[in-house]
Amino acid sequence: MRKRAFAKLNCANIDIDRYRRCGFEEVVYCPGKSIAQLETICDFFLRSKRPLFLTRIEKHIYEKLKKSFPLLKYNTLARAAFFPQKTKLKFKSNRHILIVSAGTADIPVAEEAFVTLNVLGVKARKLYDVGVAGIKRLLVNQPKLRCASCIIVVAGMDAALASVVSGLVKSPVIAVPTSCGYGAHFDGLASLLSMLNTCAAGIGVVNIDNGFGAGILAYKILSAK
Amino acid sequence: MRKRAFAKLNCANIDIDRYRRCGFEEVVYCPGKSIAQLETICDFFLRSKRPLFLTRIEKHIYEKLKKSFPLLKYNTLARAAFFPQKTKLKFKSNRHILIVSAGTADIPVAEEAFVTLNVLGVKARKLYDVGVAGIKRLLVNQPKLRCASCIIVVAGMDAALASVVSGLVKSPVIAVPTSCGYGAHFDGLASLLSMLNTCAAGIGVVNIDNGFGAGILAYKILSAK
Amino acid sequence: MRKRAFAKLNCANIDIDRYRRCGFEEVVYCPGKSIAQLETICDFFLRSKRPLFLTRIEKHIYEKLKKSFPLLKYNTLARAAFFPQKTKLKFKSNRHILIVSAGTADIPVAEEAFVTLNVLGVKARKLYDVGVAGIKRLLVNQPKLRCASCIIVVAGMDAALASVVSGLVKSPVIAVPTSCGYGAHFDGLASLLSMLNTCAAGIGVVNIDNGFGAGILAYKILSAK
Amino acid sequence: MRKRAFAKLNCANIDIDRYRRCGFEEVVYCPGKSIAQLETICDFFLRSKRPLFLTRIEKHIYEKLKKSFPLLKYNTLARAAFFPQKTKLKFKSNRHILIVSAGTADIPVAEEAFVTLNVLGVKARKLYDVGVAGIKRLLVNQPKLRCASCIIVVAGMDAALASVVSGLVKSPVIAVPTSCGYGAHFDGLASLLSMLNTCAAGIGVVNIDNGFGAGILAYKILSAK
Amino acid sequence: MRKRAFAKLNCANIDIDRYRRCGFEEVVYCPGKSIAQLETICDFFLRSKRPLFLTRIEKHIYEKLKKSFPLLKYNTLARAAFFPQKTKLKFKSNRHILIVSAGTADIPVAEEAFVTLNVLGVKARKLYDVGVAGIKRLLVNQPKLRCASCIIVVAGMDAALASVVSGLVKSPVIAVPTSCGYGAHFDGLASLLSMLNTCAAGIGVVNIDNGFGAGILAYKILSAK
Amino acid sequence: MRKRAFAKLNCANIDIDRYRRCGFEEVVYCPGKSIAQLETICDFFLRSKRPLFLTRIEKHIYEKLKKSFPLLKYNTLARAAFFPQKTKLKFKSNRHILIVSAGTADIPVAEEAFVTLNVLGVKARKLYDVGVAGIKRLLVNQPKLRCASCIIVVAGMDAALASVVSGLVKSPVIAVPTSCGYGAHFDGLASLLSMLNTCAAGIGVVNIDNGFGAGILAYKILSAK
Amino acid sequence: MRKRAFAKLNCANIDIDRYRRCGFEEVVYCPGKSIAQLETICDFFLRSKRPLFLTRIEKHIYEKLKKSFPLLKYNTLARAAFFPQKTKLKFKSNRHILIVSAGTADIPVAEEAFVTLNVLGVKARKLYDVGVAGIKRLLVNQPKLRCASCIIVVAGMDAALASVVSGLVKSPVIAVPTSCGYGAHFDGLASLLSMLNTCAAGIGVVNIDNGFGAGILAYKILSAK
Amino acid sequence: MRKRAFAKLNCANIDIDRYRRCGFEEVVYCPGKSIAQLETICDFFLRSKRPLFLTRIEKHIYEKLKKSFPLLKYNTLARAAFFPQKTKLKFKSNRHILIVSAGTADIPVAEEAFVTLNVLGVKARKLYDVGVAGIKRLLVNQPKLRCASCIIVVAGMDAALASVVSGLVKSPVIAVPTSCGYGAHFDGLASLLSMLNTCAAGIGVVNIDNGFGAGILAYKILSAK
Repeated sequence: MRKRAFAKLNCANIDIDRYRRCGFEEVVYCPGKSIAQLETICDFFLRSKRPLFLTRIEKHIYEKLKKSFPLLKYNTLARAAFFPQKTKLKFKSNRHILIVSAGTADIPVAEEAFVTLNVLGVKARKLYDVGVAGIKRLLVNQPKLRCASCIIVVAGMDAALASVVSGLVKSPVIAVPTSCGYGAHFDGLASLLSMLNTCAAGIGVVNIDNGFGAGILAYKILSAK
Repeated sequence: MRKRAFAKLNCANIDIDRYRRCGFEEVVYCPGKSIAQLETICDFFLRSKRPLFLTRIEKHIYEKLKKSFPLLKYNTLARAAFFPQKTKLKFKSNRHILIVSAGTADIPVAEEAFVTLNVLGVKARKLYDVGVAGIKRLLVNQPKLRCASCIIVVAGMDAALASVVSGLVKSPVIAVPTSCGYGAHFDGLASLLSMLNTCAAGIGVVNIDNGFGAGILAYKILSAK
Repeated sequence: MRKRAFAKLNCANIDIDRYRRCGFEEVVYCPGKSIAQLETICDFFLRSKRPLFLTRIEKHIYEKLKKSFPLLKYNTLARAAFFPQKTKLKFKSNRHILIVSAGTADIPVAEEAFVTLNVLGVKARKLYDVGVAGIKRLLVNQPKLRCASCIIVVAGMDAALASVVSGLVKSPVIAVPTSCGYGAHFDGLASLLSMLNTCAAGIGVVNIDNGFGAGILAYKILSAK
Repeated sequence: MRKRAFAKLNCANIDIDRYRRCGFEEVVYCPGKSIAQLETICDFFLRSKRPLFLTRIEKHIYEKLKKSFPLLKYNTLARAAFFPQKTKLKFKSNRHILIVSAGTADIPVAEEAFVTLNVLGVKARKLYDVGVAGIKRLLVNQPKLRCASCIIVVAGMDAALASVVSGLVKSPVIAVPTSCGYGAHFDGLASLLSMLNTCAAGIGVVNIDNGFGAGILAYKILSAK
Repeated sequence: MRKRAFAKLNCANIDIDRYRRCGFEEVVYCPGKSIAQLETICDFFLRSKRPLFLTRIEKHIYEKLKKSFPLLKYNTLARAAFFPQKTKLKFKSNRHILIVSAGTADIPVAEEAFVTLNVLGVKARKLYDVGVAGIKRLLVNQPKLRCASCIIVVAGMDAALASVVSGLVKSPVIAVPTSCGYGAHFDGLASLLSMLNTCAAGIGVVNIDNGFGAGILAYKILSAK
Repeated sequence: MRKRAFAKLNCANIDIDRYRRCGFEEVVYCPGKSIAQLETICDFFLRSKRPLFLTRIEKHIYEKLKKSFPLLKYNTLARAAFFPQKTKLKFKSNRHILIVSAGTADIPVAEEAFVTLNVLGVKARKLYDVGVAGIKRLLVNQPKLRCASCIIVVAGMDAALASVVSGLVKSPVIAVPTSCGYGAHFDGLASLLSMLNTCAAGIGVVNIDNGFGAGILAYKILSAK
Repeated sequence: MRKRAFAKLNCANIDIDRYRRCGFEEVVYCPGKSIAQLETICDFFLRSKRPLFLTRIEKHIYEKLKKSFPLLKYNTLARAAFFPQKTKLKFKSNRHILIVSAGTADIPVAEEAFVTLNVLGVKARKLYDVGVAGIKRLLVNQPKLRCASCIIVVAGMDAALASVVSGLVKSPVIAVPTSCGYGAHFDGLASLLSMLNTCAAGIGVVNIDNGFGAGILAYKILSAK
Repeated sequence: MRKRAFAKLNCANIDIDRYRRCGFEEVVYCPGKSIAQLETICDFFLRSKRPLFLTRIEKHIYEKLKKSFPLLKYNTLARAAFFPQKTKLKFKSNRHILIVSAGTADIPVAEEAFVTLNVLGVKARKLYDVGVAGIKRLLVNQPKLRCASCIIVVAGMDAALASVVSGLVKSPVIAVPTSCGYGAHFDGLASLLSMLNTCAAGIGVVNIDNGFGAGILAYKILSAK
């Protein structure tokens, strides 16, 4: 076992060995962390020259952090912050992820996946608002669907889009249920169950609204030996 | 209030006024009823010359009843029994219901709807095994979808078929979730929630595996003033 | 496949083919959409002379939109906005929908159905606050119940009204469970399950609080060939 | 504390003080008890001359017990066994319980309540198969409903009967949801929630299929000082 | 059917026949009603000299109503409002309800039951904060428990109090689960299920936090013929 | 890391290091294992002279194993098998576990805890059938409750026993919910939630029907440094 | 749209275009299909020389089919049948899937994934019975974990294995919750939720017990452009 | 029964006998109590010289109390207040509890356990932010894990930490699921189920976020005779 697998801050143990083991640095999930804790963490990443990625960070928290870390950037839709870097793409240019979303209200989750892929140096394209209620919006985009290495489908409500997309392509599909819906949607449960019960085999589902997790999984798929 | 709204048998009160009020006779739901009770009920319908329709009747129960009521017919898939009648169609010939089902395992529920419509004198057509995993099976049938007066969609698993169909047609869609699935399908809950959260508006959902209810609703829709 | 099935705005793909396919224009569900997105969408509808219908739009959002689109009208109870039009009724004058609601607190959902029908050019009548705890309120209205082409029942709590109404009429019943209740009501779940398990066959259920969906379904039923 | 509050058998502690405290003897719930345990218990009741009441006892278990205790009687529908006694009625003759049930399939639960009341020496009347789908069956029985001291309503499916009955009478209503239903009924959950959310105040709900508990509660209500 | 079973206001149908049928006047559940609607309703009750009882009314709503109806009283804990009346007790002086509660946080629900009984002219006594964690608090009060005609048990968390109380007395027990708890309490679900599964038979359960319903049921029990 | 932390059989990796790490040998959970797999495992334990403990083993499976391993003993109630050993008690004689159960139907789970403690060399006493419906059965046993080092409470239905016991003693209480109940008990869920929401602090809950886990936890508590 | 996207049998529409679109042939899910239907389907596959793969087929069904199709092979653990083929591996020899399972009872699901990969021509290795209760069993296998292109983790109970594995490797992890557990496991729900909430990002979850879906997803990942 | 088992304040019955029975004083759970009620209670504890411990008290409530009780201290993370005391440790110096937490967001719950142990005079050590996604953080701390008398594991999300820790040690493990997570975490349900289904036997689970209960249980374990 190697000596220094993690860095002990006063509020957290940063897993500095994660890049070696898993291929990406530890990412900071912000809910439940105080400004002071976040500052300590940001400071550590900055000083150790590691790429910092903050997820689920509310704008007013970001704005406070920004005062101490003026280089920090923010993606409003995705509620994500990071230090901009000159990452060149990790994979050959034609290898990319396509992010497909069903409705306008699913876009924030789709954008979290997009930002995650950006930070990881993966090329991503978008195909938004192509829900199955008007299926032609999807069908005319079949060439786009077929040329992606991996597809992330982001959908709320009945989440029917995941099955339809997966039935049209060879590439692996990552399904992200969203909490977009009401009533018997039960905050995303309906979409989650729909995606887990897909009639089109070969879909990997992540947690409700977990655009970040979908981005990491897509990155790992492209990295697969 | 009119005198005789129901007939009092020793085991049941038959609602003999239902046809006048609702447009169809009382239908007998068999689970939980003994052979003796069913015989009493059959006898009543036969003697009062009312059309009898028995739903969810297991084959071995039917076979016992058949001994006393040799004219009784059985639809094995639908688990339904009835006395055959010379019902002429209630509506003009082009007015019909289309029953669409997603997978082979959904057929028994689709057939229950079909038998129900038959007994009620409504013309019904079938379009089975057109689930969205291979969406062309559905798309090539768009003319069939468009010429129906009303469509019953029967689907288990992700039940995505209901949204896709409803997005393609003008006619009202009745969605029947089925218990066909496993694991996180929770005996039909996943399909039910998916259909209730459809992104294509204008769908009326009935209970899980309730082909009978879908048939009645379709009949009422055709009868609407 | 026809050329232009949808209009690509920067934030949404408007399904401009929906009227041809489904008989009604795309309707805009507002939660999760920003003011800027809504303005873009309103502008598109206005310029392309399509009837605009915005659902679940909070009053303060409406008031901001109103500044750019002074003709926009708002129904406070239904939280719906639209441009007023001279729609003449689509169906012969006696064909109408009756909207029945159980309690005062169910009225906003009932009104969403009412506004939806108005926008679609369908005549609708109202019968509010006739819950079964005092069943005479309902029974004295049987003539009203019987002359409607289709009935929308809006009810929270035990939602018993749907079964009682459906047992009294020939016309199809659309049931809308509401989130009106507390404790073991679980935000509408109790009403939803009650309506799905109706003992009076021939009811189509829509999502909790989905007055809009009920309106569309009623419209489609009247339009059925 | 008095000396002997319970009798210690080798398999159970019989609460022989219950009659003094609660007004009725301990009742034996049979699931999970072996024949040998039941024999020991029967023997104790018989020898100590206490009235024995066995609930949820399957017929084949009863038949085995019957060999050792030939006086034991069985109610097949209610799945209950007891030693017949010359109980005279506990209350004046006009004080009685009315047991109302919605459908034929609810009868076994209604009968469990009926047998329980019999064993306790309470007069009970029955009004079965009066579900709200044909509400006249109930309305013509309003005099019967009004003259009962307390009403037990037994209903599955949407359980709408409880609210309708409670809205018609002065007497307290005990509601027993049954597991009679399928699909989104979830083994009685739908009926239970419906009854807990009644729009007609003054209903006490017992567990699903718990006819016994309803009987005890009705008895306690009649006994109330 | 008698002519005037209800009064038609512009926002509600007041069930003015309820006292005759059920023994108590219609009670107004306030959530979801606007100030204007409440004023109309108050005005009707005042002018028709019916006793008004408003439940679940927030203090600031009450204070607005108070301006138009200066005689209106408010019980802060119970969040209930009413016009004070010189109700003399309906029953002989020793017939009373005992309201037992488990913890301090359950008191608002207990008070709603208390106010309800007051308004109905029923004598009620209180025994608060006697949860089973320190069971002596309850046991020393057995004489109090035994002399009540009916007991209302109000408890959150594990709701164990209902079973313990019911095992000590002859009188009927009404159990009110409260939403007092956290985590796996799921807003009262744990208490509700506990009370429905009581090992001490003869308990009638009402909805979570439904002190009002418990009061009505207790009143009906005392009124039982 | 030490060389041989586990033994690799063809069907399982036996964790032969568990005794050193956790203080007890690996225990074999039988559901889902074939006879052949169980024979391989038994053979390994026998030959390596490790104490074997098989949980949840059905009688007919045990009887087949018995043919190859004639020394194997079986506890019918607990459905557990083991090789008898001359374990002397691990702790001083007054240190013991008390197993308290609510009803007769909870005894199998209580016995699984009892057998587990026996196999581990821990003295255990029993106090069965002392549910709170007749609380005196429990209260007269307070001396027994107070002299145990740790108490395991096994209860189904409302599981109120756990709170009452924990409020009477200094020792830690382990609560085992059982699946004993019906209807809204949901196979043990009601008991589980009740125990997790105990109003008497200091209770550790294990899975539904998990007598084995309770036994292990009690053993670990006695072993605590 | 190409002419023949599917083959119409009398009981099913076989999606004969799936290989072209998705990279694998239609697979036959057997529950709910009759022997006659399965024979028709087998016959079609055999005559059209397509590879046949039958999932969830019970042994006695297989044995009946075997009479007509003597070449059909069966994997008992996985409950899968197929015609053996000389598939050469689709990918370079070092690219392989590692199937990791937590306990012996998870093996049937793991085997379903294994058979699926075999049929698809993908090399798969196994690492069974390495649950985290004895974590060394997993840690000594880190080299094996690290050299796989993709890992399928199959686990029931707490399903903690998925997170631990994913935290150790660069490759994508597919998590398959199993129904192996009892009590509060709720037939796999506990494992499913655990895997969806993994603290180690980059996991794609499939339905409970869905070894087949995991195999397809793994195959698609290896095939990713 | 001894005379004064509790002290009757106007708002609460303080269980002043709890220390004698259970080994610790009554603790005050603050949600739902008014400032006035809390002041009465504080005053009682202060005057009767009992150690006061207030849990789940929001800072602004504390600050109001502080004005009347200036000695009152507050732990912000744990949201707990108490009068500082010179408690010497209750146990020999090497006997201590180790509190292990998975992520930064779990710290408030861990701190509630820590403060509880402090108030009870029990030595506690902390090992925070050692979740299994980077398992080395935990493994390098095995000596720390092994020398504790009892371990409290606090974890949200998949809660996998509990099983891994319990598989490494002899001491009893108390598991505290936290509500830290989102989507399919359902406010702690996922963590709770995971911990109840642990594959490493001997874990006692407390309610979601119940750091206090874990502290009490740990104290009782150390106190076990």
